[in-house]
Amino acid sequence: MKILVLNCGSSSIKYKLFDMTTKEVIAQGGIEKIGLKGSFLKLTLPNGEKKILEKDIPEHTVGVEFILNTLINPEYGAIKSLDEINAVGHRMVHGGERFSESVLLTKEVLDAFAACNDLAPLHNPANLKGVNAVAAILPNIPQIGVFDTAFHQTMPDYAYMYAIPYELYEKYGVRRYGFHGTSHRYVSQRVCEFLGVKPDGLKIITCHIGNGGSIAAIKDGKCIDTTMGLTPLEGLMMGTRSGDIDAGAVTFIMDKEGLNTTGVSNLLNKKSGVLGISGVSSDMRELDAACKAGNPKALLAEKMYYYRIKKYIGAYAAALGGVDIVLFTGGVGENQCSCREAVCENLQFMGIEIDKAVNAKVRGEEAVISSSNSKVKVVVIPTDEELLIASDTVAILDR
Amino acid sequence: MKILVLNCGSSSIKYKLFDMTTKEVIAQGGIEKIGLKGSFLKLTLPNGEKKILEKDIPEHTVGVEFILNTLINPEYGAIKSLDEINAVGHRMVHGGERFSESVLLTKEVLDAFAACNDLAPLHNPANLKGVNAVAAILPNIPQIGVFDTAFHQTMPDYAYMYAIPYELYEKYGVRRYGFHGTSHRYVSQRVCEFLGVKPDGLKIITCHIGNGGSIAAIKDGKCIDTTMGLTPLEGLMMGTRSGDIDAGAVTFIMDKEGLNTTGVSNLLNKKSGVLGISGVSSDMRELDAACKAGNPKALLAEKMYYYRIKKYIGAYAAALGGVDIVLFTGGVGENQCSCREAVCENLQFMGIEIDKAVNAKVRGEEAVISSSNSKVKVVVIPTDEELLIASDTVAILDR
Repeated sequence: MKILVLNCGSSSIKYKLFDMTTKEVIAQGGIEKIGLKGSFLKLTLPNGEKKILEKDIPEHTVGVEFILNTLINPEYGAIKSLDEINAVGHRMVHGGERFSESVLLTKEVLDAFAACNDLAPLHNPANLKGVNAVAAILPNIPQIGVFDTAFHQTMPDYAYMYAIPYELYEKYGVRRYGFHGTSHRYVSQRVCEFLGVKPDGLKIITCHIGNGGSIAAIKDGKCIDTTMGLTPLEGLMMGTRSGDIDAGAVTFIMDKEGLNTTGVSNLLNKKSGVLGISGVSSDMRELDAACKAGNPKALLAEKMYYYRIKKYIGAYAAALGGVDIVLFTGGVGENQCSCREAVCENLQFMGIEIDKAVNAKVRGEEAVISSSNSKVKVVVIPTDEELLIASDTVAILDR
Repeated sequence: MKILVLNCGSSSIKYKLFDMTTKEVIAQGGIEKIGLKGSFLKLTLPNGEKKILEKDIPEHTVGVEFILNTLINPEYGAIKSLDEINAVGHRMVHGGERFSESVLLTKEVLDAFAACNDLAPLHNPANLKGVNAVAAILPNIPQIGVFDTAFHQTMPDYAYMYAIPYELYEKYGVRRYGFHGTSHRYVSQRVCEFLGVKPDGLKIITCHIGNGGSIAAIKDGKCIDTTMGLTPLEGLMMGTRSGDIDAGAVTFIMDKEGLNTTGVSNLLNKKSGVLGISGVSSDMRELDAACKAGNPKALLAEKMYYYRIKKYIGAYAAALGGVDIVLFTGGVGENQCSCREAVCENLQFMGIEIDKAVNAKVRGEEAVISSSNSKVKVVVIPTDEELLIASDTVAILDR
């Protein structure tokens, strides 16, 4: 069975084609700059080589058609005919309170999804464009939606409500939704397989640490809290996002700098975080280099970045009443041992102790990095959201 | 030695007169509605009876004069002559980065304090009015300033910086300052005396829980983190304040409701918190009554209120690398055993276990409420900010 996974943004489409009998990726790539000058498709050939195909891509349907044609291209293609694709799985961003699991994308479902546009005005309409583009070209193929917010829908009300007038929740759905749900779900399930344990009774803290970052508290396999909120701005310090900040500081900055809501949103989402403090880069690898060169603002940014992860691990351990597994994933979490070491330092009081020598060697692979006498297992699990989307797609087809 | 402690707001002045040989309060009361219709002074007579004296009080100097005259009033007074007052100690709200300890209020100091007005535009000018009023009536009396922010000035930069462009810190001083510092300092020192231990090497989490609320993490007697930020809006859920909220939700609400910065500040500071969720009251006693009557929104508000305290205790334990003492103070922390029980539930993993029977009996008194086998001491210490202000005043006079 072959499943095409699409992640459609406003000017980009990423794709992966899975052969689900082996769970192998048999084709992958992405389109960039849809509707802009210089649009192109970049694909990875079976030998790992990258290939760029330039083409004018004015909108998503042309983009999807280009991807499909590339998949069956005699030279670069992975399949012979589009009939080989059994279904398309889509990453969908904001499912609001309507979607707590993956679904077959019927007209009714798409209407309900469009009703959440307000909550993610940039992302949801782009996701919809991708679905409609596929439907226009392959009208009979089943399409499945997998929502970034769905896994977090099990949070109890006292964790997801903001302490603001209740009618703002009723009128506009202002509450914590959380994001990266597909990643938190994938790694929290995968770690149980990896360790040979059952999720029931387990308390897991999953740290998805990358350019965007979020942490989730998971009990019995279900999310009970997460750091991102109504929007992906809340929680951890990120590459360019501020994460947590006093709401009083938001209005103070608006008044001082003469910014409207769009202006301050831009400031907090695009010019803040690691970039805003360090002045160097939003990329943790470049930050690390600046730290090694002794740049004091880079060092400050790094300390802040680690400190906030550490505090949330403590907060979620308290929320869970203890913790059995702390898990690192995402670009930084999988690859940067210095981050994992700094975050886990001095947490012996809650049973966390990593083996520094083991940790130092782990990069992008599944591994236990806690010491043998650590009560809490500390584990690295590379995330694979696309595989989970493909798996959900197969599961829904099989019903 | 007799010390007058003043807490001057924009339309109110609270006062306490201490006899510092015995540390007793020998007179206390407050003026309300300065500059408004129906202004009055309410004092507590030595027998505990309250007495209201109505008088037109157009501004602070008239108010201070009224207080001083009441202190020497033959019928209600506590002293015979104003000469008996050795000094005046003031509660000052925002000392910015300039004040990390209490100081004699010289002209230079007052100029530096006025330079912090921007950070607390409602409170600092009112504090200054009080100082000037005293100076106008008793030009030779020493006046001492004790700052709400001072105790938190020992926080490391990675704890006090927000992850926003660094120049916003340089230009406007946007950072975490914290408030309730006098309370956190008082109780964290007092608990050491009470338990007969030294602050060195100790890790203390002080929970000042009341209508306003904040938590501080204290190591070796010094604050290393606290929940309130640039303003007193951040952190815990409070009577009418939202506490932590996604900055993306702030701009979302502004757009949806058509609010400017003043409008959303009002919403988050005055209509949110326990009041906003419950729709019942901002007062935890009234909330408790509504909970007992089964009001579901009141029950939600209570759960949220407790849950956020619990998460910060976990976060700060992680920041401190463990915890030796968890301390409750403030109106709710001192008096509401149900809050303390709910907050400490399921924290055995970090060594916290309270004795429910003991806890249930403690109300507004110094007491250990942890069980005998709890690794962490959980303690109730009623706060006394005015006594600390009076003590600081004496200490500065003695120099």
